[in-house]
Amino acid sequence: MPVISHRGAMMPPSPIRKLVPFADAAKKRGIKVYHLNIGQPDIVTPPSILDAVRHTDMTVLEYSPSAGFDSYRKKLVEYYKRNDIDVTANQIIVTTGGSEAIMFAIMSCLDAGDEIIIPEPFYANYNGFSTSSGVKVVPIPSSIESGFALPAIEAFEKAITPQTKAIMICNPNNPTGYLYSMDELNVLKEICLKHDLFLFSDEAYREFCYDGSKHISAMSIPGLEEHAILLDTISKRYSACGGRIGAFVTRNQQVLDAAMKFAQARLSPPTFAQILGEAAVDLPADYFDEVHAEYTSRRDVLVDRLKKLDGVLCPLPGGAFYAMAQLPVENAERFCQWLLEDFSHNGATVMMAPAAGFYATPGKGRNEVRMAYVLNKEDINGAMDCLEAALKVYKN
Amino acid sequence: MPVISHRGAMMPPSPIRKLVPFADAAKKRGIKVYHLNIGQPDIVTPPSILDAVRHTDMTVLEYSPSAGFDSYRKKLVEYYKRNDIDVTANQIIVTTGGSEAIMFAIMSCLDAGDEIIIPEPFYANYNGFSTSSGVKVVPIPSSIESGFALPAIEAFEKAITPQTKAIMICNPNNPTGYLYSMDELNVLKEICLKHDLFLFSDEAYREFCYDGSKHISAMSIPGLEEHAILLDTISKRYSACGGRIGAFVTRNQQVLDAAMKFAQARLSPPTFAQILGEAAVDLPADYFDEVHAEYTSRRDVLVDRLKKLDGVLCPLPGGAFYAMAQLPVENAERFCQWLLEDFSHNGATVMMAPAAGFYATPGKGRNEVRMAYVLNKEDINGAMDCLEAALKVYKN
Ligand SMILES: Cc1ncc(COP(=O)(O)O)c(C=O)c1O
Ligand SMILES: Cc1ncc(COP(=O)(O)O)c(C=O)c1O
Repeated sequence: MPVISHRGAMMPPSPIRKLVPFADAAKKRGIKVYHLNIGQPDIVTPPSILDAVRHTDMTVLEYSPSAGFDSYRKKLVEYYKRNDIDVTANQIIVTTGGSEAIMFAIMSCLDAGDEIIIPEPFYANYNGFSTSSGVKVVPIPSSIESGFALPAIEAFEKAITPQTKAIMICNPNNPTGYLYSMDELNVLKEICLKHDLFLFSDEAYREFCYDGSKHISAMSIPGLEEHAILLDTISKRYSACGGRIGAFVTRNQQVLDAAMKFAQARLSPPTFAQILGEAAVDLPADYFDEVHAEYTSRRDVLVDRLKKLDGVLCPLPGGAFYAMAQLPVENAERFCQWLLEDFSHNGATVMMAPAAGFYATPGKGRNEVRMAYVLNKEDINGAMDCLEAALKVYKN
Repeated sequence: MPVISHRGAMMPPSPIRKLVPFADAAKKRGIKVYHLNIGQPDIVTPPSILDAVRHTDMTVLEYSPSAGFDSYRKKLVEYYKRNDIDVTANQIIVTTGGSEAIMFAIMSCLDAGDEIIIPEPFYANYNGFSTSSGVKVVPIPSSIESGFALPAIEAFEKAITPQTKAIMICNPNNPTGYLYSMDELNVLKEICLKHDLFLFSDEAYREFCYDGSKHISAMSIPGLEEHAILLDTISKRYSACGGRIGAFVTRNQQVLDAAMKFAQARLSPPTFAQILGEAAVDLPADYFDEVHAEYTSRRDVLVDRLKKLDGVLCPLPGGAFYAMAQLPVENAERFCQWLLEDFSHNGATVMMAPAAGFYATPGKGRNEVRMAYVLNKEDINGAMDCLEAALKVYKN
């Protein structure tokens, strides 16, 4: 029998999927499961952008250009300008989700054996994309005690080797909800310039910044023009995850040229969702206000409830729609599984993502979980009722 | 300034795009360009499957499961059964185009440094996907004189090294239009079993087989259950290239498990075009008859015209919608460029793909071109008028 590749064997399984069979079994037993485990928003996709797809009059569903439709790229220029990001249409490659933008960045800038520094905890699939391309992830720790702020510059300096080619951040952060400040971005700038490193900035959650703070893109930091690569997506912005449209944006012409070759090899990004994405740029300016208010109040409900629980630590997330919480349990993975297998409260239970899967360092995050506040407030309260009851039972 | 990766630098540029600026310039000068250069069919996408997307009543454009919607995978089982391919829904991973299926196969089965044997000429992007994953393509020659039949078994034996992990075929073939016979597939079976190699079978053009011959899938060869991986796509089948939906199909559980991890890392294939693909399985049984008749007559017009040209050799393609032709010129690439830059006939010219881009061996295919018969007969005749006139002028 032929054998699979080493990289196929080494690919990390998705950490948030391990519990799925237990959740399915719970549902089969008639138990309601509150899903705080994945970042699939329940917010309706703006009907007008779905309508743009419904009303398409195409007769042949053709390939789009490999970099995406020109009309969409031009629209994106407007969108980015409104977000203080000055780029031209030529500096944008439309991708199949932010996922593909991440892959293009890794492949265009790093070879097998090269290293990428990522503050942990981080979006677990960075690991997958790195593994599949032979790149080594070098984590540097951010901690729940400091609210997951950017690690000190010394931590970066210590982690840098001759193989280091890039630093990756996610801002605002999945899983921590942390929003980087200008000071922190300046620290990153200093390191990238000093060591000639690329800065990959995943800004999937740009629109979701709370308490009046403003998002600062890596693309708007002067001096980083050749270093910054923006990895973007419409998945969360417009609750359009199934469209599979993102963007790879940089002013570095060599990187653009390399990424274009990867883009040409896969022919084109999906046509339908580009139509949707193009329509989305014309949504009324106040579109995000309501969404923003909704996520803010959900966050507040979630964090307020968590704060009242004995032994639970949860820094207030400044952005995205995730919160990390330290729980008074030894092994959060086992606890999460127990919640699905052996527990229910008023016929319901809660599913959360054990945080260990977001850390690259073995043993880290063992007593932490990530919660996505993608449910309405009533359900978040329902989920917190379950967690509160569960923690009381579990301790004994 | 940070430097791009070696693989980014080494990625082959798309060979069929080099001439695009010359074609654009010709159009600016008011010249009509007949595009025989790319495999973008002009056949209308069946309106009923576009309507399936138009009539969707979704409110949230959610991620689909990483392996694709269950309902679509079940429908695909029906489709494959009709094509003598017996698989279960679990043996199908829905991909983002056939392109992603190719990538999953390479990544799941080969590591950097491993080798894949591919009869040349071959679909140029196999090269790109191999380069991006550090895999070495080992070409073995098929020739226009033998109509691009499968190379003899000795050629495979000679090419095999301890690093060889897979053989890749495209059946029917892009760029040659060659359709493999049962005897040829049995040769491949023998080699794969003897040396424990995977057989990647790209069957993007399954529906396009002419002169009454039947397509034989690698998936229906007994004994290859653990070796065969089918790489599929709806792009050409339903003229749905922009949908970006394909499939990765195998009975090898280890390979499926590995591919699923790559699939999970990129989250999901596009939702809209899965709806379209699912509707397509229910197209009336005679849907392909008309398309088939149209391509057959186009092929006949094209090949008849080519046969009448002095010094032109063009084997009759048994499948797909491409024909390779040897031209009485020394350098087909220069000729193709000249056609766009310096030639016109009745205000028109023709764009073809120089064949060298489909060979991995330097120097091969220099006097060959690939023509895609994706235009209506009138336009094919117009294109042939241009080629005929051009060859007369060019010789002098
Ligand atoms: C931080 C981050 N980056 C990228 C992605 C990829 O999303 P997509 O491929 O849907 O754009 C996600 C999805 O959850 C994410 O959380
Ligand atoms: C032989 C072959 N395989 C795969 C593909 C990839 O097509 P897609 O990604 O649109 O499914 C093509 C496209 O031209 C092709 O010709």
